[in-house]
Amino acid sequence: MNARFLAPGSYGPGDDIDLPDDEAQHLTRVLRLRAGDPVRVFDGRGREFAATVTRTSKAGTSVRIGESHAAAPEPRVAITIAHAVLKGDKMDDVVRDAVMIGAAAIQPIVTHRTEIALDALRRGRRRERWERVAVSSAKQCGRAVVPSIAEPVAFDVLLDALRALEVPEPAFMLVEPGATGEAQVLSEIEAAPPREATLLIGPEGGWTSDEVDRAAAVCRLITLGGRTLRADAMGIAAIAALFAIWKEF
Amino acid sequence: MNARFLAPGSYGPGDDIDLPDDEAQHLTRVLRLRAGDPVRVFDGRGREFAATVTRTSKAGTSVRIGESHAAAPEPRVAITIAHAVLKGDKMDDVVRDAVMIGAAAIQPIVTHRTEIALDALRRGRRRERWERVAVSSAKQCGRAVVPSIAEPVAFDVLLDALRALEVPEPAFMLVEPGATGEAQVLSEIEAAPPREATLLIGPEGGWTSDEVDRAAAVCRLITLGGRTLRADAMGIAAIAALFAIWKEF
Repeated sequence: MNARFLAPGSYGPGDDIDLPDDEAQHLTRVLRLRAGDPVRVFDGRGREFAATVTRTSKAGTSVRIGESHAAAPEPRVAITIAHAVLKGDKMDDVVRDAVMIGAAAIQPIVTHRTEIALDALRRGRRRERWERVAVSSAKQCGRAVVPSIAEPVAFDVLLDALRALEVPEPAFMLVEPGATGEAQVLSEIEAAPPREATLLIGPEGGWTSDEVDRAAAVCRLITLGGRTLRADAMGIAAIAALFAIWKEF
Repeated sequence: MNARFLAPGSYGPGDDIDLPDDEAQHLTRVLRLRAGDPVRVFDGRGREFAATVTRTSKAGTSVRIGESHAAAPEPRVAITIAHAVLKGDKMDDVVRDAVMIGAAAIQPIVTHRTEIALDALRRGRRRERWERVAVSSAKQCGRAVVPSIAEPVAFDVLLDALRALEVPEPAFMLVEPGATGEAQVLSEIEAAPPREATLLIGPEGGWTSDEVDRAAAVCRLITLGGRTLRADAMGIAAIAALFAIWKEF
């Protein structure tokens, strides 16, 4: 498959467009492509085209848009993964895998046991970093949609937002096996897919019992079997399980 | 939860047993536990006990076995994950995640596009390494069963073994989206769980079309949606999806 590049905007067959700087660098410096080489270009919102490199110069890298091309299909259920920020670079892996398995959006959250504060996330420009990870993952996995990375928020702000939804959508909080007697099993979830859903996943240290109690008013508590998963593997495993139940696979 | 240690063997409440060297090191040097500290001990085959450290000396580390204790439950379906050996340390991650999500056994395989040969795996004592990874993962995830790591075999040997089963068990080959027109969707898999199943997962470069053709005689071909997953994430995602279908979660 030809290399894929993200170029946001409205364009169609026959148009000449410039690639954004990051993408131009990738095309010229990493992949060393030249004028005449075939590529694919997608707009990040679901449209993808065959394209041909027309210029690679200091002034910019341009491509001519060709025929529309089918990208990897998007799931019918738009899952927002509300994931506690993990330590070190692990959140990069969470974002990469969430994009790849088919999440629609990623909402980083800060919980009681999250080891980094909202201020520090902002100062470190972590959201921008995760956006680059999401673009890179979309390019590799074949999606023409780049899931949005929301501004990180406190756990309570997320709960307020779920509570305030005019049309409630299902929300699922993944809890540790044995964390509570009230967790439902995934097989109790209806096979009929909702249009949207939110999946809450905690940090390495887990949720506090207070967080579980408060979430229980707006979320269904679920587990993934009786074994304890790595924090950074919970997202992909939970989304894979939900998609299997909703027949996305 | 108290730290967990693997001690293979037949023992029961009241017995004094020595821990294997690796486990003794972990107890004394890493966790710095001492005589009198409470721990848990499991036999790797499903039994787990409360225990108390009785001796930590150069002559060995011993524990006194206490009451039997319920370990993390084992899935009803015993999945063998037959996974092509990945590059670098990535197979370690595959083993760790397969243990954690609940695989019963891991069969490393060498396929046409696997970048390491059986001889090199043997010389590098990779199987022993993966066994240590499996023990470590079992300790962390709460399982009292350590999945077996089989000796790596060539892809054809695996197919022969599947073909030779007296009581055929379902085998599933995970294929790339679009790799073949014949892949079934996971939702066509019967919800009634088999007792055993084998899941075949290819290397970074994927299966050859010849491998897919030959496997199709003994396996059902499945995909995980239309997006391309990282090779080292396919196992956990596929097992999560199968367990969801079979109501293990």
